[in-house]
Amino acid sequence: MLVDNQHFRTIWPNSNTEFPYVEIIDQTKLPHAFKVEKITSLEQMIVAIKTMQVRGAPLIGAAAAYGIALAMLKASNDAHLKASAAQLIASRPTAVNLKWAVERMLRHLLVLPAQERLQAAWVEAALICEEDVLLNQAIGAHGVALIDHMHSEKIRTINILTHCNAGWLATVDFGTALAPIYAAHNAGIDVHVWVDETRPRNQGASLTAWELGQHGVPYTVISDNAGGHLMQQGLVDMVIVGADRVTATGDVCNKIGTYLKALAAADAAAYGHQVPFYAAVPSPTIDWGLSDGISQIEIEERHADEIAWMNGRLASGEVASVNILPAGARVANPAFDVTPARLVTGIITEQGVFAPSQLDQLQRTHV
Amino acid sequence: MLVDNQHFRTIWPNSNTEFPYVEIIDQTKLPHAFKVEKITSLEQMIVAIKTMQVRGAPLIGAAAAYGIALAMLKASNDAHLKASAAQLIASRPTAVNLKWAVERMLRHLLVLPAQERLQAAWVEAALICEEDVLLNQAIGAHGVALIDHMHSEKIRTINILTHCNAGWLATVDFGTALAPIYAAHNAGIDVHVWVDETRPRNQGASLTAWELGQHGVPYTVISDNAGGHLMQQGLVDMVIVGADRVTATGDVCNKIGTYLKALAAADAAAYGHQVPFYAAVPSPTIDWGLSDGISQIEIEERHADEIAWMNGRLASGEVASVNILPAGARVANPAFDVTPARLVTGIITEQGVFAPSQLDQLQRTHV
Repeated sequence: MLVDNQHFRTIWPNSNTEFPYVEIIDQTKLPHAFKVEKITSLEQMIVAIKTMQVRGAPLIGAAAAYGIALAMLKASNDAHLKASAAQLIASRPTAVNLKWAVERMLRHLLVLPAQERLQAAWVEAALICEEDVLLNQAIGAHGVALIDHMHSEKIRTINILTHCNAGWLATVDFGTALAPIYAAHNAGIDVHVWVDETRPRNQGASLTAWELGQHGVPYTVISDNAGGHLMQQGLVDMVIVGADRVTATGDVCNKIGTYLKALAAADAAAYGHQVPFYAAVPSPTIDWGLSDGISQIEIEERHADEIAWMNGRLASGEVASVNILPAGARVANPAFDVTPARLVTGIITEQGVFAPSQLDQLQRTHV
Repeated sequence: MLVDNQHFRTIWPNSNTEFPYVEIIDQTKLPHAFKVEKITSLEQMIVAIKTMQVRGAPLIGAAAAYGIALAMLKASNDAHLKASAAQLIASRPTAVNLKWAVERMLRHLLVLPAQERLQAAWVEAALICEEDVLLNQAIGAHGVALIDHMHSEKIRTINILTHCNAGWLATVDFGTALAPIYAAHNAGIDVHVWVDETRPRNQGASLTAWELGQHGVPYTVISDNAGGHLMQQGLVDMVIVGADRVTATGDVCNKIGTYLKALAAADAAAYGHQVPFYAAVPSPTIDWGLSDGISQIEIEERHADEIAWMNGRLASGEVASVNILPAGARVANPAFDVTPARLVTGIITEQGVFAPSQLDQLQRTHV
């Protein structure tokens, strides 16, 4: 996608030089500064993953794959390969996609002679990136049909509400929830995005607003509290969110607050407004072993500091954090919630758009 | 209520001295500092109202009444009285309670000889304060019965979710939505409060958390996004909010985001949890001329800076504001929303608790 009118991905290699390296966009600096960081070693990549300079499941997977390639610069014997893989997996133990990417690299490289592994690692990591981009473009293509259809019916700007950041910054390019929106914008369909701030970590206000703005997609940031009122007043035509997990029955586990928006989208019908609610995900996000998200998915409780401390720019331009709570305040911080399938219109995947009850028609691929 | 184990109101007079004055809690400094400010003139009181050192409809009314008393220190002729009243009303033109209090003072004083007005103004302002306290105590008494009843059924901590600040800081004492909670806590009933942060102005995270903490009521701050998940999991027993306006049919206009919590409270029944939703208000908050809040109440759009800038303490302890948005971000900031009567279990008033369909049983008093 575009940053200051130049095309960027979130991660890219420079392997055809004497000292190969990988570059990433340092997402901890956004939206206040756009910084590209050069990653020259496995150790540096682990730091980038741990400190969330790269974040979002697909991007973390790609970063880990390149981490293996960088490790091969140093040594390509079995012992070093396996140790590097273990180090990467330990850097964020709950990141399923990271583990998947590292294991794929291992499987691919271990069967090759050591002297071929460096070259093969660069190729395989690049392939993982390309596959992510193609997956997201396919999600975009299926999702844009929904927007286009609505646009041809309403013949005016289509207002889409999104929560958190499931944009290109969370992937290698295009994003998941935002892929249909970028596809629509690029096709000249008149779209406008309501961007939920997404407390406590403000991924909407910082990352989604920034990436939409850079690509030229019209958007408006709102507090997480505002979406219900906007839907009641007919100012939202569609909700598209990403998801961390989707059950086989179509329950959607996504960033905390998603469920409230799904409730409001359903309730808008009481005021004569039809607001379909979609989750856009690669099909491997569907966990076929789960049938009841509300009882089966354990919700991660994250640190109180995420609510207490706010990061931003002082009037001087300097970046700083402020604590908004009374000293000693008690805080609870559940990070995700589960939207029941009855509130979900459809799951937009790379294979097409499926109602929750039709998910079994999907081909069960592994990422 | 208690601050550091001392009893406080939000405003109090010292009229029996050579140079009479009024004291207020400077609410712009909360929760980072507790400062009492001495107000010695009408002009100073107008500044306190304009800069929101005092806020909340009942407190603004009380402050305006004392503003008239302070004006009488200077001169008590008709011209000065009327000019002072006009200045006060112009300080926050949309504050209905301010206008009401000033007009009550005018009516009361204009019929008296000029030399009696100063003394009478102090007495009438104090009476306005006492009436507010009694009103809130009556709301508390009716509301605590609901909590007590639930407590005797569940025989465990009763978890009450509230949004924004309708506590004693918004009134002279006791608050509206928090009055039943203080009454329960003071009566030894085991209550715990989920405090919505209440973006964009953070009144929950700053004011509600602070006042509950000072009075010793157990509470936990949550992001506005979390309430739906908590209700789905059975962790909320009751919602009590304040309101800016209630229609004759029981629609509740309150701080933006209230509607989303009402939706979640209703939906909790799908998971076997009954979560009643109450608004606690003095009966004059009911606007008998309104029958459909969603179409009839115009929602104020407030300044983008409220979303962009966050106030808090730097790690150094210094208070500062940071801008959390990308430069040039577009923002929408509707300040209120309307919860339809169908989602409201009852309106807690000084006259009792009424289902939305039974509001016509209320005596129609003027504040």
